[in-house]
Amino acid sequence: MIKTDIIIIGAGPVGLFTIFEAGLLKLKCHLIDSLPQAGGQCSEIYPKKPIYDIPGFPSVLAGDLVDNLMEQAAPFKPGFTLGEAAVDIEKVADDKFIVTTDKGTKHEAPIVMIAGGLGVFEPRKPPIENLESYEDKGVEYIIKDPEFYRGKECVIAGGGDSALDWAIFLTEKNIASKVSLVHRRSSFRGHLDSVQKVMDLAEAGKINLLTDREVVGIGGDGKVENVTIKHKKEGEQVLPTDHFIPLFGLKPSLGPIANWGLEIEKNAIKVETTDYSTNIPGIYAIGDVNTYTGKLKLILCGFHEGTIAVQSAFARIHPDKKNILKYTTVNGVTGF
Amino acid sequence: MIKTDIIIIGAGPVGLFTIFEAGLLKLKCHLIDSLPQAGGQCSEIYPKKPIYDIPGFPSVLAGDLVDNLMEQAAPFKPGFTLGEAAVDIEKVADDKFIVTTDKGTKHEAPIVMIAGGLGVFEPRKPPIENLESYEDKGVEYIIKDPEFYRGKECVIAGGGDSALDWAIFLTEKNIASKVSLVHRRSSFRGHLDSVQKVMDLAEAGKINLLTDREVVGIGGDGKVENVTIKHKKEGEQVLPTDHFIPLFGLKPSLGPIANWGLEIEKNAIKVETTDYSTNIPGIYAIGDVNTYTGKLKLILCGFHEGTIAVQSAFARIHPDKKNILKYTTVNGVTGF
Ligand SMILES: Cc1cc2nc3c(=O)[nH]c(=O)nc-3n(C[C@H](O)[C@H](O)[C@H](O)COP(=O)(O)OP(=O)(O)OC[C@H]3O[C@@H](n4cnc5c(N)ncnc54)[C@H](O)[C@@H]3O)c2cc1C
Ligand SMILES: Cc1cc2nc3c(=O)[nH]c(=O)nc-3n(C[C@H](O)[C@H](O)[C@H](O)COP(=O)(O)OP(=O)(O)OC[C@H]3O[C@@H](n4cnc5c(N)ncnc54)[C@H](O)[C@@H]3O)c2cc1C
Repeated sequence: MIKTDIIIIGAGPVGLFTIFEAGLLKLKCHLIDSLPQAGGQCSEIYPKKPIYDIPGFPSVLAGDLVDNLMEQAAPFKPGFTLGEAAVDIEKVADDKFIVTTDKGTKHEAPIVMIAGGLGVFEPRKPPIENLESYEDKGVEYIIKDPEFYRGKECVIAGGGDSALDWAIFLTEKNIASKVSLVHRRSSFRGHLDSVQKVMDLAEAGKINLLTDREVVGIGGDGKVENVTIKHKKEGEQVLPTDHFIPLFGLKPSLGPIANWGLEIEKNAIKVETTDYSTNIPGIYAIGDVNTYTGKLKLILCGFHEGTIAVQSAFARIHPDKKNILKYTTVNGVTGF
Repeated sequence: MIKTDIIIIGAGPVGLFTIFEAGLLKLKCHLIDSLPQAGGQCSEIYPKKPIYDIPGFPSVLAGDLVDNLMEQAAPFKPGFTLGEAAVDIEKVADDKFIVTTDKGTKHEAPIVMIAGGLGVFEPRKPPIENLESYEDKGVEYIIKDPEFYRGKECVIAGGGDSALDWAIFLTEKNIASKVSLVHRRSSFRGHLDSVQKVMDLAEAGKINLLTDREVVGIGGDGKVENVTIKHKKEGEQVLPTDHFIPLFGLKPSLGPIANWGLEIEKNAIKVETTDYSTNIPGIYAIGDVNTYTGKLKLILCGFHEGTIAVQSAFARIHPDKKNILKYTTVNGVTGF
């Protein structure tokens, strides 16, 4: 059991800055994120793009902003549970919550701050009727370990970089025994280099490139044995395969948090603007994940929300201590 | 008459960032500040000190933060009326305010944002009964142009850097014909170097150093001719002089804004947290100058408040335009 003062669900920019503000109040934070790295949307979606509306930065790369926030938080030694999604919350006493991840890791604290942004990034799934019954039985949405596919026949579907890159990788490294790449259009959305390489490998007979086609069915007894592929005009064909790997990108979803008894509105958690508390005392929601009259889904707004929320958390944890605002300029970051 | 979309009273960090956020919505700003430079408390009180709680800056000098904010705001070409205090506001139509400064400059706009921080910086005045009747008749609280004192006898009072520095300057440059420095204690609060220099100049008979003493009276016919100085134990003496310059620092005061019909609580303006609007429609209050349940007088909170307030201002100015949030990363700063 990991014990801390504040469990922060979501290690996006807002969760990260909240570590710092909690630290000024001598409150320890432990962060849970389903992604393998910190930074939320900034790291996952646009690390190399400049943001122009972070106050004091005429321009800053999203990835650099995350690095800076990590550095700013570092003096307060946050804990991290990465690559695991928070799926369950339990109130075990008047002032204690236990948050459990999909891998079973348990975290205990008097305060939970949900900084979950747009939610857990989940794979976009193609609309194939019996798809979910083959999950982990030959259907995978993320390639975790390419070695898993050694000597196997693989059908990859998708038209973006991750479909292209994995098709190339499994082929060039001679891992898979056969790679088919299925895409419903004839042009790809990926880097030109990767598109060219796939074309070349197809020409050389090393990748089985199937454009203007979609996978519409899966067959097999207890595990994937074949997929049905439909051409726009030419009709269907059945292709034997060991694996079907749809790589259509990730989409965020509030996921299990939506069932925690929190007031939800427009896929976001309703909060009070006085302290960004939810309808469950001890649980706060900050950043993109919350909603209130006038809400703007901006990073700078989340910074404010986290800062205000930790003051309220402090008052819950220490009902009899008076917290007087001190300036970092005057007291430094550890003089509080 | 200066015309704009938003008159911002106060060019502190919060007013400056608000230019940027208003600019994204294509609203123009004109700022009024009683200080001769932008930056508010950051520039006036602690430009060379590091701040640690600006999100994304593990440390940033207050002066550098102001420079960055000026650079970030620059694309939107803000106007400035500096060195003038906003003293009067008048509602001239349902959607127009005129703000007038102490020097008579008039500004017209549909929206007024008060980002006045702790207020106008005013000199701390010693408690001398007839002091104010000699103002600008030999009593000055700020030395604007040292040449004004050429060939004159000056009594400076105070124990901080500005008293020490001006006593040294007027002496070493042979400007004043006589400099007396009166301080009510025997030790000074200034830089050690400056204290040492004053001691040396006193020893050399060039500064008339009067410690453990206070100026308690002023005499003269229509202008300062002498001051009465009282020693803790030794009683009073009358010292002839042309000028009496009390340099006890500046203290902020809400000033005339307190009489504009705005709801005031604890020397701050009450606002709604949905859009930081005051009780007068069209007037907003952001940054240190406002108050609401949970308010923290922090720079980062003011950034959020200004950002939210301009959305509401936009809706007032353009009641029939729908404003959809766009990311700077996607649209740049002028693509909105
Ligand atoms: C292309 C693009 C450009 C943008 N440009 C700008 C811009 O210019 N300016 C601006 O201010 N904003 C911009 N944004 C929005 C900005 O990225 C978000 O406002 C910001 O990331 C929100 O931060 P956050 O910490 O609240 O959430 P997020 O960054 O979304 O992070 C939330 C984290 O929580 C995790 N999570 C969610 N649920 C769980 C769970 N149950 N268990 C474990 N982990 C969970 C997620 O994996 C994620 O890492 C942009 C967004 C995009 C996509
Ligand atoms: C020593 C010190 C250290 C600090 N350290 C920190 C820190 O570490 N972190 C932090 O977040 N904050 C810190 N602060 C507080 C921070 O400086 C303020 O929160 C911030 O300056 C508020 O910004 P503002 O723009 O609201 O107001 P201000 O910076 O106060 O600016 C307001 C401006 O309005 C002008 N003004 C007011 N009334 C009028 C009028 N009627 N007409 C014309 N002009 C007017 C004033 O001249 C002033 O320039 C510190 C403050 C001090 C003094």
